[in-house]
Amino acid sequence: MATQAQHDLLADKAQQKVQRRKRFEQVFPLLVEELIGYLQSENMPADAQDWFKRNLNYNTPGGKLNRGLSVVDTVEILLCTDTATGKKVRELSEPEYLKAAILGWCVELLQAYFLVADDMMDASITRRGQPCWYRVEGVANIAINDAFMLEAAIYFLLKKHFRSEPYYGLLLELFHDVTFQTELGQLIDLITAPEDHVDLSKFSLNKHHLIVVYKTAFYSFYLPVALAMRMAGITDDSLYQAALDILIPMGEYFQVQDDYLDCYGSPEDIGKIGTDILDNKCSWNINVALANATPDQRAILDANYGRKDADCEQRVKQIFSAPNIDIAARFERYEKESYEKLNALIDALPEGAGATETSSGLRREVFRSFLEKVYKRAK
Amino acid sequence: MATQAQHDLLADKAQQKVQRRKRFEQVFPLLVEELIGYLQSENMPADAQDWFKRNLNYNTPGGKLNRGLSVVDTVEILLCTDTATGKKVRELSEPEYLKAAILGWCVELLQAYFLVADDMMDASITRRGQPCWYRVEGVANIAINDAFMLEAAIYFLLKKHFRSEPYYGLLLELFHDVTFQTELGQLIDLITAPEDHVDLSKFSLNKHHLIVVYKTAFYSFYLPVALAMRMAGITDDSLYQAALDILIPMGEYFQVQDDYLDCYGSPEDIGKIGTDILDNKCSWNINVALANATPDQRAILDANYGRKDADCEQRVKQIFSAPNIDIAARFERYEKESYEKLNALIDALPEGAGATETSSGLRREVFRSFLEKVYKRAK
Repeated sequence: MATQAQHDLLADKAQQKVQRRKRFEQVFPLLVEELIGYLQSENMPADAQDWFKRNLNYNTPGGKLNRGLSVVDTVEILLCTDTATGKKVRELSEPEYLKAAILGWCVELLQAYFLVADDMMDASITRRGQPCWYRVEGVANIAINDAFMLEAAIYFLLKKHFRSEPYYGLLLELFHDVTFQTELGQLIDLITAPEDHVDLSKFSLNKHHLIVVYKTAFYSFYLPVALAMRMAGITDDSLYQAALDILIPMGEYFQVQDDYLDCYGSPEDIGKIGTDILDNKCSWNINVALANATPDQRAILDANYGRKDADCEQRVKQIFSAPNIDIAARFERYEKESYEKLNALIDALPEGAGATETSSGLRREVFRSFLEKVYKRAK
Repeated sequence: MATQAQHDLLADKAQQKVQRRKRFEQVFPLLVEELIGYLQSENMPADAQDWFKRNLNYNTPGGKLNRGLSVVDTVEILLCTDTATGKKVRELSEPEYLKAAILGWCVELLQAYFLVADDMMDASITRRGQPCWYRVEGVANIAINDAFMLEAAIYFLLKKHFRSEPYYGLLLELFHDVTFQTELGQLIDLITAPEDHVDLSKFSLNKHHLIVVYKTAFYSFYLPVALAMRMAGITDDSLYQAALDILIPMGEYFQVQDDYLDCYGSPEDIGKIGTDILDNKCSWNINVALANATPDQRAILDANYGRKDADCEQRVKQIFSAPNIDIAARFERYEKESYEKLNALIDALPEGAGATETSSGLRREVFRSFLEKVYKRAK
C-alpha cells in the first residue's frame, strides 16, 4: 500500500505536469497575436484575419501536446541540470523558456499541418473530440490552403524569433528535412493501404517499418530533441546522429504500441474505438500475422481484412489470437526487447558528450525521460 | 511591309526563344533524377518512387515556364551585360546556367504546388490541356500530399545546390515569405468569391488589388527577379525594395490583363473560353463595373453574376459594355497609364545601382524586358 508520503509525491508530480502544460499553452495566444499582427500590417481584410485565427486555434492546441512539451523538457534538461549529478541546478530564464516553447509550438504547427491534410485524405470524421476541420461548416476544401498556412506560420515564427541565432539556418533545414520525410511516409501509407482497396500482398513488416519511421518517428521523436539540441548550442553532428539512432527506434516502438493498442487497448484508456482492421491499415498486427500465417489463415485474412464489417473484423481478430500467431504474446516480447535495446543505446551514450565552452553537451536523461513516458503505456 | 531582313530577325528571335526554352526544359529531368535518387537512398519502395516521379513530371513542366525562364533571363542580364553599354559581353558559364535554371525550376515547383491545390479547391477540370492531377485515375485526395511533396522538392534542391552559398538562408526566406503571401492571397480569394455563393457586396477594387498582388504578383514577378538578384550577389536591401516597387504593380497590371482577356480576349489567342463571370470570380472587370454601376445596373449584376448560365453571363456582359461602364475603354486607359507609370519607375532606377566588387548592381533592362513581355499581350 502506498504511504501518505508516496501519495503526496504522486499528487505533486501530477500537479506539476498540469502546470507545465498550462504554462506552455499560455504561449500559443501570443504567437497567434504575432501572426494576426502580420496580417494586419499587410492590410489583410478582417474576415481573412478572423479565418486564419480560427484555423490556428481550431487545429493547433487541443491535442496531447507531447511533441511540443518535449522540446521544452529537453531544453530544460540540457541547460538546467548538472552534468555530474544530474540534478536540476537552475530554472530556464523567461526568454529561454519562451524560445523553447516557440520551437515546441512550431512542432505542434507542423503536426496540425499534417493532421488537417491527413484527415481529408483519410476522410476522417472527428479529431480530438471535434469534427475534422474540413468538415466544419463553410470550410471544406479551403482546408487545403489552411493546412498550407499552418506550415507557413512555422517559418514566420522562426524568422521572427530565431533569425539572429547562429543555428537559424539549421532549424529551417531540420523542419524542411523532417517535413519531406513525413510526406514520404504518408505517401507510402496512402499507396500501400488505400481504404477502399484491400491488397495484403502490398503489406510487409518492412513497409510497416518505413511508414512508421517516416510518417511518425522523425517529426514526433527526432525533431523535438534535435530542435532543443540546436537551441542548447550542441554543434557536433555525430550527436545528432546518436540522437537519431536512439529516437527513431523509440518512435517505431511507440507506433507499434499504438497499433497494438488500437486492437488490444481498452477504449476507455485509448479514448477511441480502434478501427485499424476495418480501415485496411498497414499496422504492426496485420504484418506480424501475415508473416506467420498458414495458407488457410492467410486466405481468411485476405477475405476479411479492411472490410467495413464487424463480423469480418472478428474473424481477423481470431486469426490474431491463433496459437501460431498470438499477437499479444509477440507484442509482449517485442516490448521487452525494445525496452532493453533502447536502454542499451542510451547507456552507450557518453554523458555530457559534445560539451564545449558554450554547451554542456548531450545528456542521457533526455532519452530516458522520453522512454519512461512511452514504455508500457496503456493509452 | 516588313523587309526580308526584318523577317529574318523575327524568325531568329523566335528560334532563339525556342532554344532557350528547350535548354531550360532539359534541366528538369536532372532534378527529377536527384529527387528520386534521394528516395532510393532512403530505401523507399519502387511504387513510391514511381508515384513521386509521375507527380513531378505531370505537374511541373508543361506550362509556359515564364516564371522559371525569367530567373535565367534576369541572371543573364545581371551577370553578362556591360553596365555602360547594355551589351551582352559574355555567356553564362555552364555552372552559372545550371544554378539559375535550378532556381527557375524551384519557382515552377512552387507554382505546381499551388496549382495542384488550387485545382482541387476550385474543382477545376483541366489544366494545361490535360486533366487536373487530382482527377487522374487513382490520385484523388492523395493530390494533397503530392502538392506538399512538390513544395518539399524546392527545399531539397536548394539545400543540395545552394547550401554553401552566402545567400542560401536568404533564398529560403524568399521562398517562405512569398509562399505565405501567396497563401494569403488564395485565402482572400476563396472567402471573397466562393464559387457556390454569390455576394457582390464582398467585392471591391481594394479586395481585387489584394488578391492579385498576394496571390500572383509576389511569386510570379518579384520572386524570380529577387532570386536572380541574390544569385548575382546583390546585397543592398533597398534594391530589393526597388524591385518590389516595380514588380508588384507590374504583376497587378499583368493580372488585370488576364482578367480583361478572360472576357474580351479571343479564345484562339488565350487558349481557353473565359468563365470568370460564370464562376463568380473577383475579377477586375466586375469590380470596375460595381464601382461605376447605377442602382439598376447593380441589381442586374447581383442577379446574374456567378450563375452557371449563359443568358446570365450575357446580361453581365451587356452591363460591362454600357456607356457609363465600358470596361474595354477603361481597360485601354488603365493599360496606357500602367505602362507609363511602370516606365517612369524603371527610368528612375539608377543604372548599376548597388554595384560592389563582386556585383555590377541592378539593371533597368531586367524590368524593361519583363515589361515588354507583358505589355499589350493578347494571350
